[in-house]
Amino acid sequence: MLRINSARLKHDLEELGSIGRTPQGGVSRPSFSDADMQARRWLMDRITAAGMEARVDAAGNIFGRWQTGSPVVLAGSHIDSVPNGGRFDGALGVLTGLECLRRIKEEGTRLRHPLELVAFTDEEGAFGGFFGSYAFTGVLKAEDIPKARDSTGLRIADAMGRHGLDAMRAPTARRDFGQIRAYVELHIEQGPVLEARRIPIGVVDAIVGIHRYGITFRGRADHAGPTPMRDRKDALLGASDLVLKGRDLAITAGSPASRITVGVVQLNPGVANIVPAEAYLTYEIREQSAELLRLLAEKSQGLAADIARAWGLEVSIETILQIDPVPLAEEVKAAIAAAAQEVGLPHLRLPAMAGHDAQVVGRVAPAGMIFVPSQDGRSHSPLEFTADEDVERGANVLLLTLLKLATE
Amino acid sequence: MLRINSARLKHDLEELGSIGRTPQGGVSRPSFSDADMQARRWLMDRITAAGMEARVDAAGNIFGRWQTGSPVVLAGSHIDSVPNGGRFDGALGVLTGLECLRRIKEEGTRLRHPLELVAFTDEEGAFGGFFGSYAFTGVLKAEDIPKARDSTGLRIADAMGRHGLDAMRAPTARRDFGQIRAYVELHIEQGPVLEARRIPIGVVDAIVGIHRYGITFRGRADHAGPTPMRDRKDALLGASDLVLKGRDLAITAGSPASRITVGVVQLNPGVANIVPAEAYLTYEIREQSAELLRLLAEKSQGLAADIARAWGLEVSIETILQIDPVPLAEEVKAAIAAAAQEVGLPHLRLPAMAGHDAQVVGRVAPAGMIFVPSQDGRSHSPLEFTADEDVERGANVLLLTLLKLATE
Repeated sequence: MLRINSARLKHDLEELGSIGRTPQGGVSRPSFSDADMQARRWLMDRITAAGMEARVDAAGNIFGRWQTGSPVVLAGSHIDSVPNGGRFDGALGVLTGLECLRRIKEEGTRLRHPLELVAFTDEEGAFGGFFGSYAFTGVLKAEDIPKARDSTGLRIADAMGRHGLDAMRAPTARRDFGQIRAYVELHIEQGPVLEARRIPIGVVDAIVGIHRYGITFRGRADHAGPTPMRDRKDALLGASDLVLKGRDLAITAGSPASRITVGVVQLNPGVANIVPAEAYLTYEIREQSAELLRLLAEKSQGLAADIARAWGLEVSIETILQIDPVPLAEEVKAAIAAAAQEVGLPHLRLPAMAGHDAQVVGRVAPAGMIFVPSQDGRSHSPLEFTADEDVERGANVLLLTLLKLATE
Repeated sequence: MLRINSARLKHDLEELGSIGRTPQGGVSRPSFSDADMQARRWLMDRITAAGMEARVDAAGNIFGRWQTGSPVVLAGSHIDSVPNGGRFDGALGVLTGLECLRRIKEEGTRLRHPLELVAFTDEEGAFGGFFGSYAFTGVLKAEDIPKARDSTGLRIADAMGRHGLDAMRAPTARRDFGQIRAYVELHIEQGPVLEARRIPIGVVDAIVGIHRYGITFRGRADHAGPTPMRDRKDALLGASDLVLKGRDLAITAGSPASRITVGVVQLNPGVANIVPAEAYLTYEIREQSAELLRLLAEKSQGLAADIARAWGLEVSIETILQIDPVPLAEEVKAAIAAAAQEVGLPHLRLPAMAGHDAQVVGRVAPAGMIFVPSQDGRSHSPLEFTADEDVERGANVLLLTLLKLATE
């Protein structure tokens, strides 16, 4: 049975993990940062070194291809990272995909469908997230491109322009659905389930939906000395109350898989001796049931309004992201399960709690995901880790899955 | 009886208020910003235009002087502002002082003690606060100068260097205590008391003490999707809990004059889809009783420790500022009260809830403060306002106070 070259894969992982490395041992490769550009050049060199043509589309997505024709079976993920994130999130899907294409090419296996490797642009959201897969699937609208900015206010158009890419042309990266036979993404679980149950392979059932809101409480800037405590309109009191009550809501009204997270708080004026006039926070809800997700969003909005009233504040809520839960393709799940069985590995079906390019591609073409264990469930952190043997097992399941989808 | 020229004072207030003006109608003149430098040049021109010599000491403090000799009677405040602050805070003390010196010079009044106008550097704390008055009174230590940075990380040494000032020489701005007969600072109340009681003149009894701490909760960065709500070590939960409980503490354990304010919150990594690993906040306590201030500080530290334990976090507390309450000089209070009586105005003795240069100077020399009403108690805000007639009344009381102190 065909097997990947685990030494070569390990070497690739180490090399890519050294690009954008942080003092804590993680990586910082936000899309179109210097480190991301270096990683992109490195990946294209790897594709070329394997005897394949490396191609960049109008959205900055990077492709490698083995054999010609249509429709293709795609394998991949992304190589950008969150700030000081881990070495495996995204990178593992791209590098195992690369290794599978290399091995199949080396073996000269005759395929019905060509294989294509993809690394999508800005999955992690330096500029909002899923820029590459949105463009690839035709979801990206031209009018939204000028709005995509990073946390410093840099527009994606300027970031791409520096590297000779015209962001406004990104929608031309759209691929006809008929040209995609399937998309398979291998990824670390980013959660504790596979490790705790000692199961090496996860077959992802569905990808969780995400509602992300920007919530602003508005009160009044007052000098921190003279203004009595009870006379204040302190926007931070509203924000703090929502942080605590949002957590309670996820626990009491959600399912065990519901998540509510506040990851950003920004105060205005943000000075030690002035009562905050404005408090902005991001409020993110995740849940795999579309109905429960909607309910949590409604209750959260009511909660924010009640809290604002109680503290004498105003509140406004803008929608940043609204992604419905995405069930994955039964056909691809079956191929992954069969591949795991052939390799002799047990597997578990489970939901993906994080967003992935597979949820975007999964709306227009059959998509599936393979999970491998994450040590302590750690992710988006320098502590993110997956053992060599788990990487190898996952890569071999990906290899057989791709062969099944490309030959049957 | 000698009176100030209220038209000239009003004109000065309008001119200075136009420097660093914000779209909301306030001013932004953080120390050594372009706007502050423009205001400094403007003030020195005004001093020179009045026929006095304008002098800048090694700490950037600006002086004007009428008559020579020692010890001097000082009048002044500061012309820097918080970001998008008001037009009166600080500026009013400097401009009424300037007007008093001009009028006394015009009249040719014979003085026993020379009069000196002062505008102190960075009262508001762009670089930590009281840089000018600390240097002037010998409190500033050379080893602390390299640590003084603004919120962008700019060192005060670099900010001053741009304008030809050597920050490390600032301690040489120290004035011998024996050379200071008295310091009088006119200021807006920044609170609601005088307006509510319709009393035009406040004689400040004591300046509130301030303890300012930087508190950091440390948890663990986790991906916002996979990590279950109860397994998180979310640093923001600790910070939010402290914001709410700190407010409760001020109300339940403090006096009616106690204040606890969180004005800054900074998260790390500060990304929407990552559970915050670190939450830093500023925690400021104000109180006029030294004993109660100490008690509130102790209880706050216990509260932070309890909260950290409850949420599975670590917490560290650094002291940013610890200023004891400062009683003002009876001799100066008496002069102000007598001056108000001569002008025919009622006065009220009350505490100052905000920090002022008078509390720094008051540790080494007789100091006093005159308060004038603040509309709605607003301050550190574009809404800060004091009516023309209240400005005029306060300036006339300052004029007679200075004459008393300089001639008796």
